[in-house]
Order: sequence, then structure tokens, then C-alpha cells
Amino acid sequence: MPQAKIHREKPKEKFSYNPKKVLRMLDEHARRVLEDIKREKNPYFDIPMRGLNNVYFDEESRLIKLGDKLSRRYFLNVAHARKFMQTLIMMAYVKRLVSEDKHASLREAYYANKHTIPGTHENTFEDQSESDPIIEDLERMFGVLREEMNLTADRRGYIYGDIVIRDGEDEFNASKLGSGGWAVPGTVEHIQFSEINVDYALVVETAAMADRLIEEKYSKKENALIIATQGQASRGVRRLIHRLHYEEGLPIIVFTDGDPYGWYIYSTIKLGSINLAYLSEKLATPEAKFVGMTMDDIKRYGLENVTEKLKGIPPNKKGGPTGDYKRIIEEMNYPWFQNEQWQRQLKLALNWGVRIEQQALANKSLEFVAKEYLPEKINNGDLLP
Amino acid sequence: MPQAKIHREKPKEKFSYNPKKVLRMLDEHARRVLEDIKREKNPYFDIPMRGLNNVYFDEESRLIKLGDKLSRRYFLNVAHARKFMQTLIMMAYVKRLVSEDKHASLREAYYANKHTIPGTHENTFEDQSESDPIIEDLERMFGVLREEMNLTADRRGYIYGDIVIRDGEDEFNASKLGSGGWAVPGTVEHIQFSEINVDYALVVETAAMADRLIEEKYSKKENALIIATQGQASRGVRRLIHRLHYEEGLPIIVFTDGDPYGWYIYSTIKLGSINLAYLSEKLATPEAKFVGMTMDDIKRYGLENVTEKLKGIPPNKKGGPTGDYKRIIEEMNYPWFQNEQWQRQLKLALNWGVRIEQQALANKSLEFVAKEYLPEKINNGDLLP
Repeated sequence: MPQAKIHREKPKEKFSYNPKKVLRMLDEHARRVLEDIKREKNPYFDIPMRGLNNVYFDEESRLIKLGDKLSRRYFLNVAHARKFMQTLIMMAYVKRLVSEDKHASLREAYYANKHTIPGTHENTFEDQSESDPIIEDLERMFGVLREEMNLTADRRGYIYGDIVIRDGEDEFNASKLGSGGWAVPGTVEHIQFSEINVDYALVVETAAMADRLIEEKYSKKENALIIATQGQASRGVRRLIHRLHYEEGLPIIVFTDGDPYGWYIYSTIKLGSINLAYLSEKLATPEAKFVGMTMDDIKRYGLENVTEKLKGIPPNKKGGPTGDYKRIIEEMNYPWFQNEQWQRQLKLALNWGVRIEQQALANKSLEFVAKEYLPEKINNGDLLP
Repeated sequence: MPQAKIHREKPKEKFSYNPKKVLRMLDEHARRVLEDIKREKNPYFDIPMRGLNNVYFDEESRLIKLGDKLSRRYFLNVAHARKFMQTLIMMAYVKRLVSEDKHASLREAYYANKHTIPGTHENTFEDQSESDPIIEDLERMFGVLREEMNLTADRRGYIYGDIVIRDGEDEFNASKLGSGGWAVPGTVEHIQFSEINVDYALVVETAAMADRLIEEKYSKKENALIIATQGQASRGVRRLIHRLHYEEGLPIIVFTDGDPYGWYIYSTIKLGSINLAYLSEKLATPEAKFVGMTMDDIKRYGLENVTEKLKGIPPNKKGGPTGDYKRIIEEMNYPWFQNEQWQRQLKLALNWGVRIEQQALANKSLEFVAKEYLPEKINNGDLLP
């Protein structure tokens, strides 16, 4: 099924980073609380509920979305008062961060706001497990990413390829950084793409495979940006992928190990996770496609000798399914894997009881992945949805 | 105890990357085997033994070193034949890699050399746990790093600061890459330092803290290179630190969490690990110093409210010591921690039963670490050996 070679599409979104939006939100909510106090009413916040009960898969946008169930948090309510206080403390902190153009990690936000309330033995926060959910509440309340509130996620991952990035006063080409590449920061809200000279972005699970492709000059030969996630994609990387697709029109092609963890990485890039459903619209990229590894690759490229056994107990054995088998069965039920192609791959994995790693392609030759496997599959449109 | 501000020192080593050295080694050893075969003698390899029995702490160089015990591996010996074959296969592979200027990960090296021996059901390698030790054998046999044999370790970590790096045809300044920084590749043998405009390198355990320092412009204000290890330092980062110290004269100052894991990270950068003792001379930097976090910091900076409890059972309780307590007691016995300052910190941790994170400094203010804590301690020479 030969199709046209992959190309950059028309952008669907404009670069829209606006720190003032968050300040306006904070202001509105704080003013309402203040008004309530002045009128001697019980002040409250309305926070969209978390959890599976308030999450659904939207067929049209192909995104996991947050429902409209709200939870109302009152100040004058013994069960709510502590969280109400914490919400206000964190709002004040976010206001300072954004006004001063400073960023803080979740851990710093916890430490910075932990103190004993004067005249009491009560701490504002006992533990980060108290401050993180408050930050998530603010994300849902305001409909913004915590990165837009200058709260930075842990960073991981790097990119390599012919695009020019502007970050503050610096401007650089991410294909001119030797074999290292550009380390993706925790927050990519503020960066701008000055030039995009690639046709698509190839998202790669392992650093070793990304480095293989860098060494083989894949980026130059195939006109692709390489994005190494180094395992599960960090929020920074997921946001970068989203922005490259929607603002710059880059097709996104994902390349992971052929195992339930690799497919889960793809799934998270494509649709986000149920935990963070409320972020799908800014973090997920439903149009992403999957190049491999697939179970069909094993036969097609003669890799039978370099597969690995799945871990855990198969569904038809006593005590099963556990481990890899259990995860594969869970993935078979994902709404976005309800199509013939994915069901086939997942069933084959269950039946054969094997997994196949990206690096197993080295069994053919080191160059094989860059010179044959990827160009062939991508240029033929041999991709999973 | 105010001392002079820290400055770059005179280099102790010259840049000495020479791929031909490995080819020569391979050639010598292979020729000897060939000669033995021609003379109808039983060919063998002499391989320095691994394990605690053949490792010692050299007081003079302050390095963990490999002893001179050898293990002789014969071809005509049922117990040795398989490993003898694997050694030759891997030598041939390394020869190809280095000759063709290609790199492979340990995993690729395994997959690339796994095949069924024609006419038998025997595989050359069953598992990566068979190929990794052979590569370590080659490292000890030749006295080279596996990176010098173009076998690349997993990469992790990034750098930020005013140094100019040449990597292949690319040359860039690591302070002009926005908030991201340069992602350190798995192998840094080939990179060259064209310009060093900093006074020292600050090695930082967490990405969040490194990002804090980047945001506070610490690098520029204090004239320092920031190296983020993102947990335990990867081999690439350790080799980079070593090279910056010995070839470029940069003092190395390490900044980790104040807990047994952070101190272990310091220990590994400084002296290497017992497992990889034979690599100390190329990977370790015994002159590295430690700025914090220390137990004394807790009182000095009033951080009592933001410590965390050590995990595990203390030595004086039933079932103890376990967890953090056990690790601290192990560290008290490290030869390089046999000094008053370290014994004091480790004892305080045991007595107080607490740990302190880098990010806990955010309790003072976000700027505190960059504007007061680090400059004060470093410029006063308030460092642990």
C-alpha cells in the first residue's frame, strides 16, 4: 500500500502562551472569595471532580476528557477548611511565581509553602502528598496546565534535528549540538519555533535507539526531528510533541519497544492518561501514529531469534493473567485501540507470549533500522492508528 | 575560615583520545592466539580477575584499584571454551565498530552477536547477562573503557554554562541553549573543549535544582558550569567530570541531597564503585569536593521544619540497622570517608534520624540557594573532602 512520502501539514493552532491569563483567573477567583467574605457569606471554590467517575472518552475529538461534575469546597466546613486554606496559599504562591516570572518544581512549591501557622502547632502542609493534589485542583479549576502556572514537572528527554528554537534570548539549531542534542526543559510553554526544516517528528522510546539514529544521520537523510523520551514521555516532551503537531503541523510518528510498556508510552502520547484526563487537550496528540515495534515485524523481518518472553502468567494458566499478559488485556480494552490493526497486534502478543525490543533490530545490522526498517515502513504508510 | 575564591587550576592531563590504541590491543591479542594455534598450543587469554578479592583502595592516588590477580581462559578446556568463543566474537565486533567509527549500546552488542552456531542448536549468547561480562573482561584485559571500544553506556544528564564544546563538525556554547542545556551523550571520548570560560563545575543531583540554578542565572553570576546528573551519575557524566578536571583544570564541587543516596552519588563521582574498580583511573575524580547538603546545614540555616525522617530501623532498635541507617553505617566505613568532617555528618544523620533535600532550601526562598547558600559555602571554602 504505497502512499505519498510523509510531509508537514498545515498548522492547526497558533502559539498562544499568555502568562496574564493565569493572573486573570487567580484574580477572578480570589475576588469572588473576597466578595463572599464582605457579604458575610461562606466562601467556596468549585472544583471539577477527579477520578474515573468524571472522565470519559470523547469519540469526536478522540480525547480523554473531564466531565462536568463539580465538587464545592467551603471555608466554613470542618471537613473542607484545611483544603480551603491550602488552595488559597497555593493560589497566592502561583500569583507570585507568575508575576515574578519564576518557576518552581512541585517539591519546591511544597517546601516553600510548608510552615507552622503562628500561634498553633498546625502545619500548612504535612507532606507533598497534600500539596500536589491542590495544584491539580488548580489545574482543573482554571483549565490550565501547571506549567502555565510556572510549576515545573520533572524533565527527561532530548531532541535532535533541523529545527531552530528560540528560548529567551537564545536561538539555536537542534541539529548543531554534536551527538548530544538539546535537553528538553520541564516547561516548554515559553519556547518558540523560529524555523522548522523537517517533515515529521519521530518519537523514540530509548536513548540508545535515538543515539543509533543520530549516528546513522537519520535526521538529515529522512528530514526528521528525533525526540528521545527516555522511557515514559515526560510532560515537557508530551507538550513539545503537542505543540510541534498543532502549531507547526508536524506529523508525529512513535517508535517504541514491541511490548505492553512501549504501547502504553504510545498511548500516553496519543491520548494522555486517565489520571491527568483534564490535561488531554494540551498534552495529548490523538493524530500520532505508530511505526513499531509490532508483532508482525517479528515474522516480516525474521526476528524470531531475538524476541524475549513476556513476563507473568498467561490468561489460560492458573493464577493468570498477571504481569505483561494482564497489561496487554487492559490495553485491548482502551477505546483508542478498538480497531482491527491494534487488536491483531495485541492478540498476537498474547498468543505468542513474546515481546520484541527496538534494539533487537541490531541483529540484522546496526544500520538496518535507519536504512531499511523505518524509511520503508514510514514511506509506505505502514503505520498503526 | 575565609579562603580565596575558587579558580580554575593547571590541567594535569592532555586530551588523548586515540581509537588506534584499541585496534592495536585487539591486534596484539588476536595475533598471540593465532600464533598459539599455528604452533599447536592451547590458545588462552589472561584476564585480570573481578570481584572484591582483586580490588584495593590505593592511599596514594586515593583511588579504588584493580589488583594483579589474573585468570587464564583456555580454548581447549570444557569449562572455558564457551567464554573463549564469546571473547573472540566480541573482539571481532569491537574491531568492526572502531574501524568503521560506529557506536553500539551494550544491548545492541548483545543482539548483534546473538546467533545460532551453524550445524548446532547452540546460541553464541543466550542473554545480555552473558555478553556484558565479556565486555567487562575486555575492559580489564586492555585497560580501556568500553566507551573507547565504541560501546556506549546509557545516557542521562545535561550541562549548562559558558564552555564551548566541539563534537564532530559542530561547535556550540553550552550557555546559549535556552533553559534546556546540552544533553550529555553516552560517550564523551571524542568531544573537545574549545573554550572554558568558567571557574569551576558544580555537579548537581536533581534536575529540579539544576533548573533552579539556571533560572537564577547562577552559572553567569558565579562563573560556574552546572552539570545535572539526574540521580546517580551516568558513565558519560562521570567521564565528562573527570576530563573537565584533569584536562581543563576545573575544580569539581558536588551538590546532592543530604541523605545516604546523595552521599553515595558523591562517592561514586569521587572514587568510582567497587564493581567498576578497574575504571577508576578514567572515570573517578578523587579531588572532587562536597558542598552539601550536610547535617550541619540543618541547624545553620534553620531547616529543622523541612527535614524528612530516615527510612528503616536504627541500629539500636530490634531488627536494625536496615534501610537508610544501614547504608549510612556502610558509608562510615568507606576509606575515603575516614576523616573527621564526614564521620561527623554521618554520625549526626544516625543520631537525628533525618535527611535533608536540596529543594528544602526553597523553604527560605527560591533564590536562597543561588544567592546565599552556595556562594557563601563555596567562596568560604566550607566544603567537605
